[in-house]
Amino acid sequence: MTAHAKPLPTAADVDAAAVRILGVAVRTPLINNPALDAHLSARVFLKAETLQRTGSFKFRGAYNKCSSIPADKRAAGVVAYSSGNHAQGVAAAAKLLGMPAVIVMPSDAPVAKRRRTEALGAEVVAYDRNTEDRAAIAERIMAERGATLVPPYDDPLIVAGQGTIGREIAEDLAAQGLKPDVLFIGASGGGLAAGTALGLKARAPDVSIYTVEPDGFDDTLRSFKSGKRETNARMSGSICDALMSATPGEVTFPITSTLIGQGFSVTDAEVGAAVRYAFEELKLVVEPGGAVGLAAMLAGKLDLTGKVVAGVLSGGNVDAALFATLIAA
Amino acid sequence: MTAHAKPLPTAADVDAAAVRILGVAVRTPLINNPALDAHLSARVFLKAETLQRTGSFKFRGAYNKCSSIPADKRAAGVVAYSSGNHAQGVAAAAKLLGMPAVIVMPSDAPVAKRRRTEALGAEVVAYDRNTEDRAAIAERIMAERGATLVPPYDDPLIVAGQGTIGREIAEDLAAQGLKPDVLFIGASGGGLAAGTALGLKARAPDVSIYTVEPDGFDDTLRSFKSGKRETNARMSGSICDALMSATPGEVTFPITSTLIGQGFSVTDAEVGAAVRYAFEELKLVVEPGGAVGLAAMLAGKLDLTGKVVAGVLSGGNVDAALFATLIAA
Repeated sequence: MTAHAKPLPTAADVDAAAVRILGVAVRTPLINNPALDAHLSARVFLKAETLQRTGSFKFRGAYNKCSSIPADKRAAGVVAYSSGNHAQGVAAAAKLLGMPAVIVMPSDAPVAKRRRTEALGAEVVAYDRNTEDRAAIAERIMAERGATLVPPYDDPLIVAGQGTIGREIAEDLAAQGLKPDVLFIGASGGGLAAGTALGLKARAPDVSIYTVEPDGFDDTLRSFKSGKRETNARMSGSICDALMSATPGEVTFPITSTLIGQGFSVTDAEVGAAVRYAFEELKLVVEPGGAVGLAAMLAGKLDLTGKVVAGVLSGGNVDAALFATLIAA
Repeated sequence: MTAHAKPLPTAADVDAAAVRILGVAVRTPLINNPALDAHLSARVFLKAETLQRTGSFKFRGAYNKCSSIPADKRAAGVVAYSSGNHAQGVAAAAKLLGMPAVIVMPSDAPVAKRRRTEALGAEVVAYDRNTEDRAAIAERIMAERGATLVPPYDDPLIVAGQGTIGREIAEDLAAQGLKPDVLFIGASGGGLAAGTALGLKARAPDVSIYTVEPDGFDDTLRSFKSGKRETNARMSGSICDALMSATPGEVTFPITSTLIGQGFSVTDAEVGAAVRYAFEELKLVVEPGGAVGLAAMLAGKLDLTGKVVAGVLSGGNVDAALFATLIAA
């Protein structure tokens, strides 16, 4: 690997994160559904991060980061910018640690996500996704208050925190005498994908991992192919509101390109079908961005016959109106 | 206790059922949600039978019963009458055991439940809930085909199968060093309530159990008070389509009156609020009849402060249109 400006997290950092989040994060179940197994002629295990604190995996990284802030910096609080799930994760982590939190959130974020962030005690600062720079706003708040930035993905502690998902998948499969053949993992900035790959590959080095992104937001897949960090043309226009980062991270891309290096994209229709399948068969509420891995499985992107397949249902924060539309389709 | 016409199942029968369903039924997770804990100032554990095979607890009893049918009776198959969840449970159990299944189902049953029953390979015979007697129809089919009846609740093997839920709740709490103080359990014919009470009380004798029924369908609660099996005035008119049996069973009532003996009823509005809460906070799809225990907790029927509280989310088979209406309210 080439030299990098930022330090990269390792599997040991994932292990350290696992200790920090123990008893604080929910040990989410790894769900097996016989109907899904039969449908795909495979053994499929879905990590239900929908059941995590705040309804998405984001709490893991946020708590790992916030709990690492030195005592003398805690009173000044944290600041984060997020389309929603990271916001809630940071708000909940800060609250548990007794720290104030400011969240810079796009004005078109789902109502449910904004409301839930405020309910967790955070101060929300809205911005226009098309005309304003959320990073600049966050930096101003940091300068004014001395607050610590909790980045959404491009940070070793955030990646290591999300990595506990991969570690738990490996542990729970091992307890059943199984090793994963394939993992489908959603990618946006790459924090979940990089972390989960680190945590899982350390215990199951032979697993083949595939990123899954929305069509039109396949910067990670294009970056794998070109070998450099590509950028999405748009910042809106997918039902996967949680997966619209502009480009893979400086910290995440070296990890995902090394440990993953391959992937798929899925259409809004394929994602909608997965949300509907999760409602009808799995009885789980999954938001579009949290269903891309399941969408790739159901859409037959890869022949899974006879394989042990893992996926992550990464979030369940979806407005009732959108959910009603998707399950009625 | 007085003498009974039918033999009553015991905790030992629950243990035997646990062996029969091992590796066939899903070992459903016992879910703890920090937001719910904070909301109720309690430690709340929800047995997610929504994640069971066929989306409800009914598979447990059905498989325990069907797998106990002698080899020479299996080719003639089974027959069952059900508003839906028992139908799917029987269909799935019969299919796994290679037996034909006929399900006598009300013509106004939710579309999702009928479609799913047929998808499991069962033959569905529809009847009019207001003018026809489902038991008589089932008896005719039994006479014609030599099929074995799988009753919805009033059978020792059915009760013992559902009892594995109580056994698993006790085991999973014990693994965390906990014992339940309170259990809320939905009641209709009483198979789930009787079985769960048997399985749980055997390992946690001090638990206080409360049945929960829809307003207007509180035959069990009225029977507890009068000491004899009371009957509901109506057979329709609640959103809890799964909880509209006419009266407690001959097998179930002696058990529920002895081990439970107390309960609550909940309004359609309280049930709807619980379904919505499960969507918004728990990210779980719960059907109205499966949410009555959660409804009783959220409606404050009992002061739960500081207690270890258990509940069963007993089913998740709900039509998309009804679900959309409930979560939008």
